[in-house]
Amino acid sequence: MPAVKLVIQFDGTDFHGWQVQDRVRTVQGVLTSALSQMIGAVSLRSSSRTDAGVHAIAMPVVFRTDKTLPMKAYRRGLNAILPSDVSVVDATEVADDFDPRGWSLGKSYRYRIWNHELPVALESRYAWHVPNHLDIAAMNEGGAYLLGEHDFSSFRAAHCDSKSTMRLMHSVRVAKVGDNGLLQVDVCANAFLRNMVRIIVGTLVDVGTGRKKPVEVEKILQARSRPVAGPTAPPHGLFLREVRYP
Amino acid sequence: MPAVKLVIQFDGTDFHGWQVQDRVRTVQGVLTSALSQMIGAVSLRSSSRTDAGVHAIAMPVVFRTDKTLPMKAYRRGLNAILPSDVSVVDATEVADDFDPRGWSLGKSYRYRIWNHELPVALESRYAWHVPNHLDIAAMNEGGAYLLGEHDFSSFRAAHCDSKSTMRLMHSVRVAKVGDNGLLQVDVCANAFLRNMVRIIVGTLVDVGTGRKKPVEVEKILQARSRPVAGPTAPPHGLFLREVRYP
Repeated sequence: MPAVKLVIQFDGTDFHGWQVQDRVRTVQGVLTSALSQMIGAVSLRSSSRTDAGVHAIAMPVVFRTDKTLPMKAYRRGLNAILPSDVSVVDATEVADDFDPRGWSLGKSYRYRIWNHELPVALESRYAWHVPNHLDIAAMNEGGAYLLGEHDFSSFRAAHCDSKSTMRLMHSVRVAKVGDNGLLQVDVCANAFLRNMVRIIVGTLVDVGTGRKKPVEVEKILQARSRPVAGPTAPPHGLFLREVRYP
Repeated sequence: MPAVKLVIQFDGTDFHGWQVQDRVRTVQGVLTSALSQMIGAVSLRSSSRTDAGVHAIAMPVVFRTDKTLPMKAYRRGLNAILPSDVSVVDATEVADDFDPRGWSLGKSYRYRIWNHELPVALESRYAWHVPNHLDIAAMNEGGAYLLGEHDFSSFRAAHCDSKSTMRLMHSVRVAKVGDNGLLQVDVCANAFLRNMVRIIVGTLVDVGTGRKKPVEVEKILQARSRPVAGPTAPPHGLFLREVRYP
């Protein structure tokens, strides 16, 4: 049975994350229901199980179907059915055994921070408001300790169920966007543990305010203990940007 | 009694516009209630009576009070009370007789258009999705006919109650932002009629798709008749950017 890979974008504000759950609105639930209107029941698998409130710029999801619709029909048809906070950016045919999680070579996330004394309404959905001054050079210095292969036990949620805690970090970059107070933290790794990006951002913000020294990031890694790291940054600043495949 | 000018920002999505009305959530209502918690009842006047769904990057509002709080207290205190979709960007003391509407020298609006075959969820709150290809050069050519002083009767809502329909248009500019499909229409005039920016944008989009020729914009102006102009663009793409004072 052929498989179809959709790349979807969503505003996570009004979703309880990706995965179907009883009595709450989820991305998987809304998308499954739209697909069932078009082609009947399908089983959807995604690259990532995003948490409530997290957004996606481009998240791959896969389903099998014996219908042979042109890919354009998925792009046009699904967007006509879907609510405005989920959209289909692309649709392609993939191998029968395509596994969006297992085949992933790497993922990129972006975390947006509004770093200004005062909050602004038009960033409140898509950025974490941090009023204290952040030292970006110190944050990048701290982030550099995370590069390479490490045990990221200090940077995972208590309820994370991954067997291995080793991950290969490709890049961690903190940068200003324009000159108004907006920062972006771009993180890229082979894969991520539960809440890993949000705990990294919470820790780097502690470094940026001076609460922690950059070199402490190395000690936090070595401690392999969640309480040693910084707080978990809120979900609404986080965006899944890209999942790479062979 | 001294007067205070606040510059506020808001996400219009969940508001029924600026002006207080019974049983619906309005920006004036939410802000009056926050001020009453801080300093007691005040009467708020604004530069503009924005429609439901329209956003503001910087909208001046004014009230009089006999309290002599430092301006910092308004900035910090109000933001601590206000919901996340309204924020106070600035607070300054102004003359007793400051009239935010009457004293205005000019206003700028921005209208955002997502011009791509497919919609995208993360622009759905803040941009109008126009799937047909838009010819930006033609839109700018059409917009140029609006420059200068004209009777803008063709570009006002049926329920507009302004006595004069003469307005002085300073600039109309359509431009791409980046290369992904986002366009901005920036419009600046001494003042605007009801729905004027949205009807201008609807008309320029008709020019962009080829439905109208650029030169027809001049004929629409001359006709002084609303039905001759294009459709009213939806409110969620519109942002009040700036109101200028002496």
